[in-house]
Amino acid sequence: MKKRGQAPFAYQHPRPALAVDCVVFGVDDERGLEVLLIRRGIEPFAGRWALPGGFVHLDETVEEAARRELREETGLERVYLEQLYTFSELDRDPRERVVSVAHYALVRPADHAALGASDAREAAWHEVAGLPALPFDHRRIVSVALERLRAKVRYQPIGFELLPARFSLSRLQRLYEAILDRAIDKRNFRKKLLAMGILVDTGELEEATAHRPARLYRFDRRRYDEQRKAGFHFEL
Amino acid sequence: MKKRGQAPFAYQHPRPALAVDCVVFGVDDERGLEVLLIRRGIEPFAGRWALPGGFVHLDETVEEAARRELREETGLERVYLEQLYTFSELDRDPRERVVSVAHYALVRPADHAALGASDAREAAWHEVAGLPALPFDHRRIVSVALERLRAKVRYQPIGFELLPARFSLSRLQRLYEAILDRAIDKRNFRKKLLAMGILVDTGELEEATAHRPARLYRFDRRRYDEQRKAGFHFEL
Repeated sequence: MKKRGQAPFAYQHPRPALAVDCVVFGVDDERGLEVLLIRRGIEPFAGRWALPGGFVHLDETVEEAARRELREETGLERVYLEQLYTFSELDRDPRERVVSVAHYALVRPADHAALGASDAREAAWHEVAGLPALPFDHRRIVSVALERLRAKVRYQPIGFELLPARFSLSRLQRLYEAILDRAIDKRNFRKKLLAMGILVDTGELEEATAHRPARLYRFDRRRYDEQRKAGFHFEL
Repeated sequence: MKKRGQAPFAYQHPRPALAVDCVVFGVDDERGLEVLLIRRGIEPFAGRWALPGGFVHLDETVEEAARRELREETGLERVYLEQLYTFSELDRDPRERVVSVAHYALVRPADHAALGASDAREAAWHEVAGLPALPFDHRRIVSVALERLRAKVRYQPIGFELLPARFSLSRLQRLYEAILDRAIDKRNFRKKLLAMGILVDTGELEEATAHRPARLYRFDRRRYDEQRKAGFHFEL
C-alpha cells in the first residue's frame, strides 16, 4: 500500500540499469557477412571494438533507444531493425547490474559510410568470421543474432534490406551463402527461389561484367512482405 | 569519466523500472486453449484479472524473476518457459515508466491446481477465446504470445509440455486445433505427423472410452528435441 506523500514510484527498490545493444549485419560482395562495431570512447573497455548501444532514456521505447544509439554512434538511420532478445546475466557489465535489450539490423554496407560520432570514436565493418575479442557479453549477443538470422532465411525471405534494388541470382545466392557460411547448390537454389514467386525479372542485364552478363531481378515488395508474414520453408 | 568517490553506477540518470510478465498456456480437453490469470491483490487494478508478473530483483535474471513470480503468484514450478518479447511503450503502466520482459510457458492444466499465493489473491485458467478485459498492455502481450505459439507449431513440434505422457492422435489433433483455433483435416494431419518421426506407438490402447479405443502414442524425446532444434515446415 502506498503512503500519501510518497514518491510516485511503482517499485521502491534498487533497479537494474536498462540498456540496448545493436547487432548490425551487412553483406559485402567480397568480404561476406559483416557486423558493424564501434570503438568505445568511454570506460569500461575504452578503445575496444564493441556493439553500438547505450542506456534507455525515460522518454523512449527500447526500439527508439536502439535507433538513437545507432544514429549517434554510427550515423545509421532508417534501417530495418528488430528486437532480438533481452540479456540479463548478473555479471554481464563490470560496473553494475545492467540489463540489455538487444536488437538486430540489416543494411547494405555500401549505402552507409558508417562514420562514428558522439561517445563512440569510430565505427567500422568487421567480418563475422574474424571478429575481434568483444567486451561484456557482446560475443554471445552476436551469436544469438547470427542464429536468428540463419533460422530466418529458412522461413522468411531475406535480401530486401541487404541487396541493391536490382540484382542477379548469383548475387542473391552469394548473400545466402554468406549468411549460412557454406556453399549452396546453384540449380536447387534457383528453382526454389523462383518458386517462391517474390522475384520479378526486370528484363535488364548486368553491366560491366567480365563474363556473360546475368539477368537482373528485383523483389516484388508486396509478395515479399506477404511471404515474410506468412512464412514458408526453404530447405537449402 | 567517473570521478573518485562517486557512486559506482554505470548510469546516473533516472531509469525505468524493470518487470516480467508471464503468459502461461494450457490446453484443456473440453475448453481448448487457456491462459492462466491471477486476480491482482494490489493497486493499480486491484481485483482485476491480469497476467502473473512483477518486478525484477537485482540478484536475478529476467528468467529467474519470471519463474519466481510464477511460483509466488500461481504455485507453478519447473515449467517450460521461454522469453517472448520486451514491451516498453511509455504509457503501459499508469504509475511510472515500467519496461516488461514477457515470457510464455506451456503446461498441462491437469498437472497444476494453480492456487494463488503471495500478492495475488487467486489464480485461474481462462479460455483464450473469452478473456476478461486485461489491465496494462496485457491483452497485447497475450496476442504476441499467441502469435508466437501459432507460428511455432509450423516449424517446431508442439505437445510435449501440453499432453499427458501417452496420448491418442485424436488428442494431439485437438491440441493443434485448439492452438490454431480451426478444424484440421484428419487424414492429412496424421500423415504429416507420422512422417515427422517423433511419435512412438506404445502398443497400448485408450481405456474407458465410449467409442472404439484409440492407439496410444508417446513422443520420442530425443527426436522431438532434434526437430525442435532443427525446425521443419508443417503446413496444416
